[in-house]
Amino acid sequence: MTRERILREQHFDLNFIKKYESLMAQGNGYLGLRASHEEAYTEQTRGMYTAGIYNRPMEGESADLVNFPDVAGFRIKIDGTLFSLLAGEVRSYERELDLSTGELRREILWRKSDGAEFRFLFRRFVSKDDLHLVASEVRVTSLDREARIEVVTGIDAQQTNHGSQHLIEKEVRVLDEDVMLGTYRTSQSGHTAALAATVAGSAAGKESFAAKNRQLVMSVKVEAAAGEPYVFEKKAVVYTSLDRDLDGRTPEAACLDALAGYAGKDYGTLLRNSAAKWTAFWRDKEVLISSADPFDQLALDFALYHLEIMTPAHDERFGVGAKGLTGEGYKGHVFWDAEMFILPFHLLTEPRKARQLLRYRYLKLEQAQEKAARNGYEGALFPWESALTGEEETPEFAAINIRTGDRQRISSAVAEHHIVADIAFATVQYYLHTGDEEFMKTEGLALLMETGRFWMSRASERDGRLVLEDVIGPDEYTEHVDNNAFTNYMARYNVEQALRYMEQFGAEDEAYRDRAEAFLERLYLPVPDAAGLIPQDDTFLSLPEIDLSAYKENQGSQGILLDYSRQEVNRMQILKQADVVMLLYLFPDQFPLEVIAENLAYYEARTIHDSSLSKAVHAIVAARCGEEELAYRFFREACLIDLGPKPDSSDEGIHGASLGALWLATVFGFANVSFEGDCIRLDPKLPKEWSELTFPLRYRGRHLEISISRSRIRIIRHSGPELHVKVSGSEAEWNGRTEISIDLFRKKAE
Amino acid sequence: MTRERILREQHFDLNFIKKYESLMAQGNGYLGLRASHEEAYTEQTRGMYTAGIYNRPMEGESADLVNFPDVAGFRIKIDGTLFSLLAGEVRSYERELDLSTGELRREILWRKSDGAEFRFLFRRFVSKDDLHLVASEVRVTSLDREARIEVVTGIDAQQTNHGSQHLIEKEVRVLDEDVMLGTYRTSQSGHTAALAATVAGSAAGKESFAAKNRQLVMSVKVEAAAGEPYVFEKKAVVYTSLDRDLDGRTPEAACLDALAGYAGKDYGTLLRNSAAKWTAFWRDKEVLISSADPFDQLALDFALYHLEIMTPAHDERFGVGAKGLTGEGYKGHVFWDAEMFILPFHLLTEPRKARQLLRYRYLKLEQAQEKAARNGYEGALFPWESALTGEEETPEFAAINIRTGDRQRISSAVAEHHIVADIAFATVQYYLHTGDEEFMKTEGLALLMETGRFWMSRASERDGRLVLEDVIGPDEYTEHVDNNAFTNYMARYNVEQALRYMEQFGAEDEAYRDRAEAFLERLYLPVPDAAGLIPQDDTFLSLPEIDLSAYKENQGSQGILLDYSRQEVNRMQILKQADVVMLLYLFPDQFPLEVIAENLAYYEARTIHDSSLSKAVHAIVAARCGEEELAYRFFREACLIDLGPKPDSSDEGIHGASLGALWLATVFGFANVSFEGDCIRLDPKLPKEWSELTFPLRYRGRHLEISISRSRIRIIRHSGPELHVKVSGSEAEWNGRTEISIDLFRKKAE
Repeated sequence: MTRERILREQHFDLNFIKKYESLMAQGNGYLGLRASHEEAYTEQTRGMYTAGIYNRPMEGESADLVNFPDVAGFRIKIDGTLFSLLAGEVRSYERELDLSTGELRREILWRKSDGAEFRFLFRRFVSKDDLHLVASEVRVTSLDREARIEVVTGIDAQQTNHGSQHLIEKEVRVLDEDVMLGTYRTSQSGHTAALAATVAGSAAGKESFAAKNRQLVMSVKVEAAAGEPYVFEKKAVVYTSLDRDLDGRTPEAACLDALAGYAGKDYGTLLRNSAAKWTAFWRDKEVLISSADPFDQLALDFALYHLEIMTPAHDERFGVGAKGLTGEGYKGHVFWDAEMFILPFHLLTEPRKARQLLRYRYLKLEQAQEKAARNGYEGALFPWESALTGEEETPEFAAINIRTGDRQRISSAVAEHHIVADIAFATVQYYLHTGDEEFMKTEGLALLMETGRFWMSRASERDGRLVLEDVIGPDEYTEHVDNNAFTNYMARYNVEQALRYMEQFGAEDEAYRDRAEAFLERLYLPVPDAAGLIPQDDTFLSLPEIDLSAYKENQGSQGILLDYSRQEVNRMQILKQADVVMLLYLFPDQFPLEVIAENLAYYEARTIHDSSLSKAVHAIVAARCGEEELAYRFFREACLIDLGPKPDSSDEGIHGASLGALWLATVFGFANVSFEGDCIRLDPKLPKEWSELTFPLRYRGRHLEISISRSRIRIIRHSGPELHVKVSGSEAEWNGRTEISIDLFRKKAE
Repeated sequence: MTRERILREQHFDLNFIKKYESLMAQGNGYLGLRASHEEAYTEQTRGMYTAGIYNRPMEGESADLVNFPDVAGFRIKIDGTLFSLLAGEVRSYERELDLSTGELRREILWRKSDGAEFRFLFRRFVSKDDLHLVASEVRVTSLDREARIEVVTGIDAQQTNHGSQHLIEKEVRVLDEDVMLGTYRTSQSGHTAALAATVAGSAAGKESFAAKNRQLVMSVKVEAAAGEPYVFEKKAVVYTSLDRDLDGRTPEAACLDALAGYAGKDYGTLLRNSAAKWTAFWRDKEVLISSADPFDQLALDFALYHLEIMTPAHDERFGVGAKGLTGEGYKGHVFWDAEMFILPFHLLTEPRKARQLLRYRYLKLEQAQEKAARNGYEGALFPWESALTGEEETPEFAAINIRTGDRQRISSAVAEHHIVADIAFATVQYYLHTGDEEFMKTEGLALLMETGRFWMSRASERDGRLVLEDVIGPDEYTEHVDNNAFTNYMARYNVEQALRYMEQFGAEDEAYRDRAEAFLERLYLPVPDAAGLIPQDDTFLSLPEIDLSAYKENQGSQGILLDYSRQEVNRMQILKQADVVMLLYLFPDQFPLEVIAENLAYYEARTIHDSSLSKAVHAIVAARCGEEELAYRFFREACLIDLGPKPDSSDEGIHGASLGALWLATVFGFANVSFEGDCIRLDPKLPKEWSELTFPLRYRGRHLEISISRSRIRIIRHSGPELHVKVSGSEAEWNGRTEISIDLFRKKAE
């Protein structure tokens, strides 16, 4: 398949510069590089990050994902004039991120203020073949006269996290008049980061090296003839002391080895090696949408690209941050987003990666147990925000209220406990989808039992029932509530599954069993009231309401907090995202469809969607309710969270969970896939704009490809045993074939 | 006197942006503000510094002068387009630093890319009336249509020292929807810095405040009518925990009090208060030159302006850094420049300030004694580089040799000991010029005796003489030599004067006296050889020579170190600056004029002038030798060190000592003033380009004004008793007058 998958930027616009830096970021799960322009702009936020390298700026503060020294910048002077798109005249500009190959390209026709014209072609990629490699090519052509071109590039450690310094320069070197090598140490966490770079030009130039003020640079001056492209190639590599592929070498030595290995390999060769890996990715995981609007396909391509580059598949010690490695938002911390919004994509396309994400949690079980104990609970209380160490990384205080001087304590770390059950939920899903007994009987079971134990100790008695008091559900506009529906249902599921797998794997613990059974019997679960409404918590339905239309218009901005204090918002029927809708998405079989529809309508009306996790989940539930038009609208709005016209939507990084949720909406909403043991169920709810939807699925050893059109479902079984297929309630038979096709109209007619 | 004193920049040129940031820096000795443009450019190095606030980036490193949060930046958007001189068309541009008032003004006519034209007038000053105040005015006029103007400004703590972070944000606040207040702490030295700012506009606009990522900003949006200037006024104040005028308040409280005191005072009023202080400065200290080239006058005005703003006259705990407060060069450290090149200007115009600079050393006497003891010496060994604490701040190692990986040890701290005698020399000069017995009998004598004691312990025996082995003179291209002429003469003067004032003030110490007398008797002094040459050290005259013309062409660049190692340079007759010439400048009476001329010629030929301290001293000695043409050439070249056409000459700050030396060259060279007790001697050597030279002098309680033309010297005695005046060897008589006039031709004819 050679269709184009390209994210384009047609104009240079400073107002969008940070947004496109995030959208067009490149990476490979090991490192992420923002799509800053080669030339500098004050409005840019250059950034390069590697998974797992965090540093606390000072005692008592939470760890930042460290912004690495920059290797992507090039300072270009032409006849003494600094090249900048702000200066002179931009005759043409096009930038494209080729999602098919991972290459970022930018072509510019630029007229210098003295009238001379130049063509620039910038290309670069972060290798998917060698996780440590960043390669760039700069091609400058003076179109109508001879010109003196001076290029300065190297390793720039003046980079900080917005003025917060994390790296100490240990050494900068130039080896063999060729390789620039910088070694740095994180000031608190003590990791070593080594970066090395070589630069080669297509023509002989005057080269010199310099190191000053945390910059190590090479400068090349050439006299370029008119019409002849001058090509400038840079290979940069990054190794850190956390890397598992050091093989006993220092990060510095590994850098030098890597560059030595690339001697004689040019940009094109290296790109081909990397692009081949991207070809395999798309071959295995692509979701194809025939939509009246090709934007839908782009949005899915964009989502899958980012899901891939945000996931540190190389090392289970690292999780997926809320912004991946595309920016400094949320300090690169890992939230429930990882398990609930990102893991499912991996689980259904490359289960090994889902396992790794769970292993990330498993490796931090001890810290979670310690956190539980510190808070007076048993079992494992995973941190609301997690980084490398597994310690709680949620900042203790929110940003200061600059008017009152108050620093409001962030309660998530002390009350947003549903993450514990979310991890358990993902663990069970992993097992159900893979049958991976080896994982389940050790790590999986440990996660389940310790998370289950937490809930049992977390519950308190009230009127003879067990209740979960003073929690925060996913909806952070209603904090410190009792019996949050989402939390209670998830906690029950957690304990129920712990019990189940304890029994299944013979890890009998009688005391645990007795306690769990009592917990399950006595735990209060909010059930639909007379009007069919599931109360989000004990008081929500009795709170006053206000007109939210203005805030919904401006969703995602948290504008309501400008008009109301957090306390006031807490005391009204105002939702950031709908917990009950999330619950209905996860447990569709536990509620009648009318109840689901009723609750969707009720809660959506009261939801501002200020969380990027909200819209796509609404799309799933709406689709399942047969409200395809509404579902499609939610889906499209979710697509626009990053790709929409708001200039500052994604300044601090893409919205990882939202991108994962686009895939969820497609597969669990529009395709409406579900599983039950060895049975896959499909009850498609394609929006009318879509004529066909094709996607791969891995399930319990099968590799399937599912195509859904308005009239027909076709399933190809590339590998693995047969499985039951139920389409809109009717079963289809494989009868030994590798492909089955179901006529939807006939089915519906039956 | 209302003549214009203006430093102009006629074009906006990125290549000169850092240079003009230094040249046009503003300040008042308490704080220094680089002349960064209000709008941001990637090539800028924004900087604001306050005297005395240093911080060590890490254990074992020397302290940096801390770059403060920025208050001068304004982000301006017009109809959504960011204002930048790189974009659109700059129809006219003029920037001027008005040295008469201390105001920086910039007027721009700018055509936006859509054709709309705007006039900008930026003005700002650092108050000379209230040391804590920085005031700015931004005036935007949309010339031909209505426009939406958005201005964002505040307190930006993303500033670092080239990526090295020194300040921790403690709190950011907005008070009364008016005052922005940020409080910061230096990470190692623990000083508190508070900054507060208010912003007021001439028209009602939509205002909002925000704090994020170490920035505290106010944003104002206005709809500007065509032709109507929209004026935007900002008052910012800075207080630190080091300030002596806190009166028990916190720095934050002092900031708020200051701003409250400015309520109702507009930019113009505040500027007038500050400019009045500048008027007094010029009235008291101006040097007037009638030259064929008005550049000479500008150069002197420029020098005096910077001498004034670099000197922390408000607080004797702080010294004058090599770059003043105009940049981060030499980390803001204090060298011998302060005593030998900057102090004399103050001594002869406002002796109180010279006293303060000596008090700075006196307050650090204990640390100097400790340094001496640590190094096995007695007395006081002042640090080669000094900051707030008086500890040695010279970096232990020079920048790494990026090719070899070697870090060469910087020897100045262990061998450049002449600074000890330089401080003693300045102490004696202070007393000779002021007769300040109160100072001399306590602080002055302590400084003299302890510095003298150092030299006595520093000397070693060789062939029955005392010698000073393994020293570095001012000329750092000949390190680790024995009997550096400058050092030996200065050491002798030091001990001699210690002895003299010990006796004068009856602080008899017999052991000290005996030892000092023996030292003076036995110390070896390099004397002119058969050819009349004073050997710079024991071996210099026997070293090989090379052709230096290429390096002299490119003086100031230290280009020789690209071709030769420091060791190789050490072993040749190559000078960075001429020690012997410096010696001849300080002790003209000790050598016959022919010897002076001979040595000037010999050493100048071997001097690259890679030190900015070199040229102007050569000018003095050449003038005294009657080589006015040569002297004028040296003087002009010294003027060009900062004001010349080299785009990067002053990126890291102006050259404080060089600017002090321009004044020295004028007064001690061209006017050829010298003193002997109550006698002032004048033997003018005006360059032929100068028709008149007028300058004030304070000497032993007199306030004089001296005018020198080609034919006549006129001295006005504004106050103080008569004193003897000798002009070219002949004495003039006051006879009770307040003014005398001497006809130079008649004198010469006599």
